[in-house]
Amino acid sequence: MIKVGIVGATGYTGVELLRLLALRKDVSIDVVTSREMEGAPVSSLFPNLRGYVDLPFTVPDDEALAQCDVVFFATPHNVAMKSARSLLERGVRVIDLSADFRLKDRAQWEHWYKEEHQSPELLELAVYGLPEVNREKIREAQLIAVPGCYPTSVQLGLIPLLEAGIVDHTRLIADAKSGVSGAGRKAAVGSLLSESSESLNAYSVAGHRHLPEISQGLRLAAGTDVGLTFIPHLTPMIRGIHATLYATPVQSVNAPDLQALYEQRYKNEPFVDVMPQGSQPATRNVKGSNRCQIAVHYLKASNIIVVLSVIDNLVKGASGQAVQNMNIMFGCEETAGLEGIALLP
Amino acid sequence: MIKVGIVGATGYTGVELLRLLALRKDVSIDVVTSREMEGAPVSSLFPNLRGYVDLPFTVPDDEALAQCDVVFFATPHNVAMKSARSLLERGVRVIDLSADFRLKDRAQWEHWYKEEHQSPELLELAVYGLPEVNREKIREAQLIAVPGCYPTSVQLGLIPLLEAGIVDHTRLIADAKSGVSGAGRKAAVGSLLSESSESLNAYSVAGHRHLPEISQGLRLAAGTDVGLTFIPHLTPMIRGIHATLYATPVQSVNAPDLQALYEQRYKNEPFVDVMPQGSQPATRNVKGSNRCQIAVHYLKASNIIVVLSVIDNLVKGASGQAVQNMNIMFGCEETAGLEGIALLP
Amino acid sequence: MIKVGIVGATGYTGVELLRLLALRKDVSIDVVTSREMEGAPVSSLFPNLRGYVDLPFTVPDDEALAQCDVVFFATPHNVAMKSARSLLERGVRVIDLSADFRLKDRAQWEHWYKEEHQSPELLELAVYGLPEVNREKIREAQLIAVPGCYPTSVQLGLIPLLEAGIVDHTRLIADAKSGVSGAGRKAAVGSLLSESSESLNAYSVAGHRHLPEISQGLRLAAGTDVGLTFIPHLTPMIRGIHATLYATPVQSVNAPDLQALYEQRYKNEPFVDVMPQGSQPATRNVKGSNRCQIAVHYLKASNIIVVLSVIDNLVKGASGQAVQNMNIMFGCEETAGLEGIALLP
Amino acid sequence: MIKVGIVGATGYTGVELLRLLALRKDVSIDVVTSREMEGAPVSSLFPNLRGYVDLPFTVPDDEALAQCDVVFFATPHNVAMKSARSLLERGVRVIDLSADFRLKDRAQWEHWYKEEHQSPELLELAVYGLPEVNREKIREAQLIAVPGCYPTSVQLGLIPLLEAGIVDHTRLIADAKSGVSGAGRKAAVGSLLSESSESLNAYSVAGHRHLPEISQGLRLAAGTDVGLTFIPHLTPMIRGIHATLYATPVQSVNAPDLQALYEQRYKNEPFVDVMPQGSQPATRNVKGSNRCQIAVHYLKASNIIVVLSVIDNLVKGASGQAVQNMNIMFGCEETAGLEGIALLP
Repeated sequence: MIKVGIVGATGYTGVELLRLLALRKDVSIDVVTSREMEGAPVSSLFPNLRGYVDLPFTVPDDEALAQCDVVFFATPHNVAMKSARSLLERGVRVIDLSADFRLKDRAQWEHWYKEEHQSPELLELAVYGLPEVNREKIREAQLIAVPGCYPTSVQLGLIPLLEAGIVDHTRLIADAKSGVSGAGRKAAVGSLLSESSESLNAYSVAGHRHLPEISQGLRLAAGTDVGLTFIPHLTPMIRGIHATLYATPVQSVNAPDLQALYEQRYKNEPFVDVMPQGSQPATRNVKGSNRCQIAVHYLKASNIIVVLSVIDNLVKGASGQAVQNMNIMFGCEETAGLEGIALLP
Repeated sequence: MIKVGIVGATGYTGVELLRLLALRKDVSIDVVTSREMEGAPVSSLFPNLRGYVDLPFTVPDDEALAQCDVVFFATPHNVAMKSARSLLERGVRVIDLSADFRLKDRAQWEHWYKEEHQSPELLELAVYGLPEVNREKIREAQLIAVPGCYPTSVQLGLIPLLEAGIVDHTRLIADAKSGVSGAGRKAAVGSLLSESSESLNAYSVAGHRHLPEISQGLRLAAGTDVGLTFIPHLTPMIRGIHATLYATPVQSVNAPDLQALYEQRYKNEPFVDVMPQGSQPATRNVKGSNRCQIAVHYLKASNIIVVLSVIDNLVKGASGQAVQNMNIMFGCEETAGLEGIALLP
Repeated sequence: MIKVGIVGATGYTGVELLRLLALRKDVSIDVVTSREMEGAPVSSLFPNLRGYVDLPFTVPDDEALAQCDVVFFATPHNVAMKSARSLLERGVRVIDLSADFRLKDRAQWEHWYKEEHQSPELLELAVYGLPEVNREKIREAQLIAVPGCYPTSVQLGLIPLLEAGIVDHTRLIADAKSGVSGAGRKAAVGSLLSESSESLNAYSVAGHRHLPEISQGLRLAAGTDVGLTFIPHLTPMIRGIHATLYATPVQSVNAPDLQALYEQRYKNEPFVDVMPQGSQPATRNVKGSNRCQIAVHYLKASNIIVVLSVIDNLVKGASGQAVQNMNIMFGCEETAGLEGIALLP
Repeated sequence: MIKVGIVGATGYTGVELLRLLALRKDVSIDVVTSREMEGAPVSSLFPNLRGYVDLPFTVPDDEALAQCDVVFFATPHNVAMKSARSLLERGVRVIDLSADFRLKDRAQWEHWYKEEHQSPELLELAVYGLPEVNREKIREAQLIAVPGCYPTSVQLGLIPLLEAGIVDHTRLIADAKSGVSGAGRKAAVGSLLSESSESLNAYSVAGHRHLPEISQGLRLAAGTDVGLTFIPHLTPMIRGIHATLYATPVQSVNAPDLQALYEQRYKNEPFVDVMPQGSQPATRNVKGSNRCQIAVHYLKASNIIVVLSVIDNLVKGASGQAVQNMNIMFGCEETAGLEGIALLP
């Protein structure tokens, strides 16, 4: 039985972790924390969990969390970097869904997050939890930095091209579209239905915090620095990321070879589904599921490779990937608890 | 292993049946039919099923279907009543998600559906598949008429009051709100996103086909004819039904007693969740799940009982309830394949 | 030239007032206030107004407002009741879109709003700004209480029946459905797209603040106290209210007579559109327009009258009605600035 | 008085033309045709027009249309090319909202539309109705080809860069996102709310019919052939196009100079709103209005220019632009009937 604690479970990644873990017979959810909701049943906040999760929220408490085998931080950035160390010292494995440990370069982290990192010594220890790249390291990891939602969709889409060295790594473009749940369950005018439905806009054009994370991952795949333009867009739906990726070949390519490249790269990956040649995946294909669906196109007329990559930002882009990491770390079936088929329509 | 066939699986109840059955280890999906899609892989139409359902659609064929233990009709009305008999004669159990066998009164059926019934002799045989009322009959049934979506939400909401005989059964009101998927996956202008999003309207005010079905069920609960006003509304969401039910007490009532009445009535029901007193369930609480959530209110100032009842129209209102029936018929755990927690948000 | 001031223009009723007034050649928008946005151009907050409204927000200031002919309060309740008096004393006419002056009964106001009323002496002076009832009083009014959104749709739907005395006034039911913009442009978790889209729920079942306002209006129409059950619902769209109204006849009625009653009652009303018999109006028919569309049905089988009444909650339910009041007060064409046709789709 | 006929007015561009023209005092809507709706009042199909448009639909009839000063074709492609000639011969000016006359190159038209062009001799006569480029030609035109929705947003976004010759015209990228109304008011499964809401997908990746139209316009601006990658996306909203445009500078550029370039290019354009430097326009800023809002960004790190261009696809992308053309052709104020402020929220 894996004893689990979840810190900061009042957000969307929290409720999604609970949805994915509550039915597991090999997992016991022992601690669910929230300062503001202390004492309230978890299911009073999330009525979909009635009968599945009967715990109340408790105030974060090191003693209680230290009894767990693994603690998930479903918090905004800035929390885990303060609290992870003491848990790690007591032998608790930590899976952080926030950005605190995603960047290896402390200076870069501090530049983008505008504050001092509280546990820089853990940056090296942390394993970037993208199983399709780091599965073996994850197995032994004590501290996992779960990739961001945009970074997951963009990296899975571009890595095959960069590993194969067949595109110009200096001018990659990721035009990404996200549902509103990516902004979290926090009261913010911009995320109101009245503001964000029936509309669409780009944001953070001058620079989004996921840019350095994506660049770091792509650099590893390319073996060299990459040049990436990343433009995120807010779109009127709850869940889903659609990344439209543009790359210029540096050698002669064709659609069947690209198709084979992707199928080969991901042939053993349980959660990456390379669609048939010519496909155009929709985000709803993966709603509620841990899958990334990818299609690769070659446009001969403009000599460009266009990759379409879709995920559910709250599952493969957050909580599902976190559980996938847990499964690998604890020797469970990697797909345990993640078999759910996407809800369509 | 329960061998399953699904007739007419290109609609939303079809894909939902497949989602609920595909992961079952005790179920084998052997035949999935569609005339128009013959030969195409089911997963080419429903990409969420890629890797889970590898069958192609086939033309409906009695021989193939007769090899099944149970055949689901996920067709519009008018199909099952023509095809069920021959399957039944060959010992195949039939679960019909359409309206063909829901009304016991042939004349009434023909009045509302404007055509002659093709198998009137089966109307008596058919068991109305509302487990909360007919569980024992379902166990032995050869032919199940799965209740409609509105009828499920309204009956589960009103039955406790009528069985207890504490409301005026001559003037019940059901103001019901449905998501657009209730209209099915057929090309119709009124169901276009551009027509039905950012809008809300009542429809079929003069009389909806679910009215006689609801009345039939309520009459059984009340032990006498009932007077029901039923006004359905189209609302801008994919899934969900919210029934707001109004009933006038014929004796002194109070909120705690009503609460106890509902809790008692449904205490052994795995899929009816009576919410705590004062609750106001949202349809999203049950999105993708087989649950009906109910809250009962008593408004003293106007001496009226208001019941709020929510379901996912495609699950408890259709395919989930169909699977629940199958589970009962075949002696499986009643909740098998239906444990999934609602997707929130 | 009518000199206009708008207090608290950062909300949805504010931007809607600006949309409706900015193109008027007989209106000059002189003051637009907001404490939090002081100094920022109005169009930086509402980019639809770029080029139409070039003012900055200013801090509310009695001197500046006193130069106006009319001041709109587009504030939450509790503001106008503190500020209106001094403006009125200086001869400025006040149109309050909040609830501060809607109830004539101070005790009732204080009961529902849980605080002491700051200007109880103005409650009698205030004219309830429903032109279809109070047009003549509005003409001379110094202080207008613009009706709430639910109250507008419900009163316009029920008044003909009550004035005619043909329904049981002791048991009226209003089942009302509103878009999310009714909750205003304030950061609140419940109004997030991720919380309120793809869902529907009743709220304030135990008692909504619009209940006493509606009852007050219906009492005037009926000439006696009424019994009203009012259940509001939150629905996944930005704009629109759909009120479904149930009333029991106390005499023999039929559909054509009811139709004639409504057509007669509203035949001179520019903003009440009685639809042809048998119609089922959709909220999108009036999106962005100042119209109320009404259809009246008589269901013989259950002997009940069902009235369907739709408005745009931000226009006829708020800012449009406020402008209609201004037009009447200042002797303009009543439809001035309000001719815009609803945006469909 | 401009006498207007509208052919094929049952679609979204039809109802939008009627919305924009019905209030005009200098325009008389004389003929509104639809074969399938013959005899029905226009307002029975579009209840927002009740009281504004009292005509019935009539069958298209050359005699009746020939009495008009101008006839709009709000039809799918393939209709105007058969009917325009006889009207032109009788002196009626024609504004075609379809694609029939947009491409100058007949062979290219026939390649993309897979059929023979029925009036190739009119291709040269037709004026491409983008006022920001062709205002003078439009003034005298007998036949206008109203630009497509994507082409309008993309061309207005890229033209300043190409005219200035400061970007690499051989590798332009247009990643465009459209609301569902772009697919028209026709029954199609893919446009159902249940299919297209809560989802997002690219489509026509291999080649969209708007590609040659955009390329033709960009070639004129650049003075040479251009290389364009155009990827359209279907997004879950009714109205709006957001084009995200990527161009690589061929010389040193900076944000202020780019800003000045755009402001200068469009300084006399009533319907192009160059937003302040650093802006990120949302499609809702222009919902229901004839505006194109544009923001230009220079990303130094990746040396790329990113232009954001938003329109309402049914207004500036179709019917509004058609009316703008009519205004120019008939010597009206160019903004007549198009002053309406966008509906926000």
